[in-house]
Amino acid sequence: MGVWVTTVAQEGVITVADLGEFGLIAAIQALLPPVAGAEVGVGDDAAVLSIPDGRVVASTDLLVEGRHFRRDWSSADDIGRKAAAQNLADIAAMGATPISLLFGLAIPGVLPAEWVLEVTRGMVAECRRAGAAISGGDVTDSDSVMLAITALGDLAGRHPVTRAGARPGDRVAISAAVGRSAAGLALLAAGLPADLPADVAAELLAAHRRPEPDYAAGPLAAQAGATAMIDVSDGLIQDLGHVADASEVSVDVQVALLPGTAILRTTADALGSDWRLWALAGGEDHALAATFPRNSQPPQTWTVIGTVGSGRGIYVDSAPWNSAGGWNHFLSSC
Amino acid sequence: MGVWVTTVAQEGVITVADLGEFGLIAAIQALLPPVAGAEVGVGDDAAVLSIPDGRVVASTDLLVEGRHFRRDWSSADDIGRKAAAQNLADIAAMGATPISLLFGLAIPGVLPAEWVLEVTRGMVAECRRAGAAISGGDVTDSDSVMLAITALGDLAGRHPVTRAGARPGDRVAISAAVGRSAAGLALLAAGLPADLPADVAAELLAAHRRPEPDYAAGPLAAQAGATAMIDVSDGLIQDLGHVADASEVSVDVQVALLPGTAILRTTADALGSDWRLWALAGGEDHALAATFPRNSQPPQTWTVIGTVGSGRGIYVDSAPWNSAGGWNHFLSSC
Repeated sequence: MGVWVTTVAQEGVITVADLGEFGLIAAIQALLPPVAGAEVGVGDDAAVLSIPDGRVVASTDLLVEGRHFRRDWSSADDIGRKAAAQNLADIAAMGATPISLLFGLAIPGVLPAEWVLEVTRGMVAECRRAGAAISGGDVTDSDSVMLAITALGDLAGRHPVTRAGARPGDRVAISAAVGRSAAGLALLAAGLPADLPADVAAELLAAHRRPEPDYAAGPLAAQAGATAMIDVSDGLIQDLGHVADASEVSVDVQVALLPGTAILRTTADALGSDWRLWALAGGEDHALAATFPRNSQPPQTWTVIGTVGSGRGIYVDSAPWNSAGGWNHFLSSC
Repeated sequence: MGVWVTTVAQEGVITVADLGEFGLIAAIQALLPPVAGAEVGVGDDAAVLSIPDGRVVASTDLLVEGRHFRRDWSSADDIGRKAAAQNLADIAAMGATPISLLFGLAIPGVLPAEWVLEVTRGMVAECRRAGAAISGGDVTDSDSVMLAITALGDLAGRHPVTRAGARPGDRVAISAAVGRSAAGLALLAAGLPADLPADVAAELLAAHRRPEPDYAAGPLAAQAGATAMIDVSDGLIQDLGHVADASEVSVDVQVALLPGTAILRTTADALGSDWRLWALAGGEDHALAATFPRNSQPPQTWTVIGTVGSGRGIYVDSAPWNSAGGWNHFLSSC
């Protein structure tokens, strides 16, 4: 922290290179709350975390500037929150409770150190929403900005809910509205139409910049008997396609059953776009999609949107869905 | 895999973009052996791994092309092995046994897919050396190549050995020779001197390209009563400095006690370099350094190289060490 203060006085803007690796790590560590249940927290070779269940749930993701976020479209705080959210949602999608996050930051030395600290604050805030804590990390020099996140979770004795358990006759449900992140992204790309109400635009931009997954929805779905579950990160149809493939079933989504579409319709009208593409193929909402036995009751916050059938593939309103759809990070940017 | 075969016939060299995200993931997954003790392996939102101990040891690291590796200096297989090794060594340095690795790859679409698969094979091979398995990952498009690795481990009922337990009077020991990776790097940078025996150069180049940590040395040291331990990744002195800081002690290293220095002396003579800088400040050997109570016996494979004293800081041959030393990724490249 000594380096930090000295450099403020000299330069006005402290860069990552001003702080150096260990100065930056110290500044980041100062932002991290203690990890509940950690025998060893940040600052050693590895963290040691209590997982009484005897099983750990683990998932890892990369976010690359220009592909997954833009610094001119999202604040550092939003980028940190979203990076954490997309990984923590993967834990919830197994029916587990997030307990811990480890993050790596690859950053150019010319970047303001404050940007990195804001990313960290955003991750801390999203971890707090999820009941998790940051327990480790790494920083390194790089020409471009990348975040590498690993989330760990606890099943508390439950069976994990994989993608492979859906059975014909099951009902398909989602934990939250989909398509809002894609609509927000479309607004960023096209600019705000003059006739779009400001509160509508603000809600969709926030959905894109700062998705707020309902982490409790995953364990609740597991307790309600969910047979398969997935985090909707690449688009509803594409992710349900993964469930259909893994479960060797077909899935039929009824567009009329999708929740919260009024705001998408309004915005699509203003942009001259098709709201159904946002809802069906837009990514990064981080709602959960799950299947439930026909006679079971999905949790109250979930909305039934379709059914599981025999056969294979994805149907929309009972017609086969043939589009490539979804997001392929090698084909699309941002 | 269908995309793969088609593209071979058309192009000769298959790129990452030819395969696409899901094709590449499928090709990577085909290389991964099943994870022992995994309730859910790769291919779902998250892996579910058995850790009967009730605690998980977790560490994460980033490797950036041009900073941590060069594709013209190391094969893809070596890069994969080294990336895995440096993370698995962090787990061993807590006294734990590595059980699992998750990896993220950020790669340009123009990269040959075979390079990625060779990196994967290298990681699989190093995980096998450590008794661990790859249980998850992510791939994404990027302008530069970056690897993000998270290793998980199991303490099997032992107390974790942190950096903070060294006490005055303890003996300092290392699990393997240090300085070889730095010497190999110096040979790559300077070119091979004509008078350096080929087998010496080969051994040092291999040490740089493919460090082979003795993972069992960590749990052995823990069982032998190690009071503090660290993975020597940034240089012996710098990493012992972390132990000294965390333990609030001083550490005195006796250069004459360092094992395996003959090969360093020979090479330094040929290059006109100082072998002691490689041994004391060179990084990436991934030996373990630990402290042991005065009257205990370090494991047979360990070498005592110094002592812990009261006071603070690092001493070499009883003189204070003042150099910045070690590796700072924001100051040095490769």
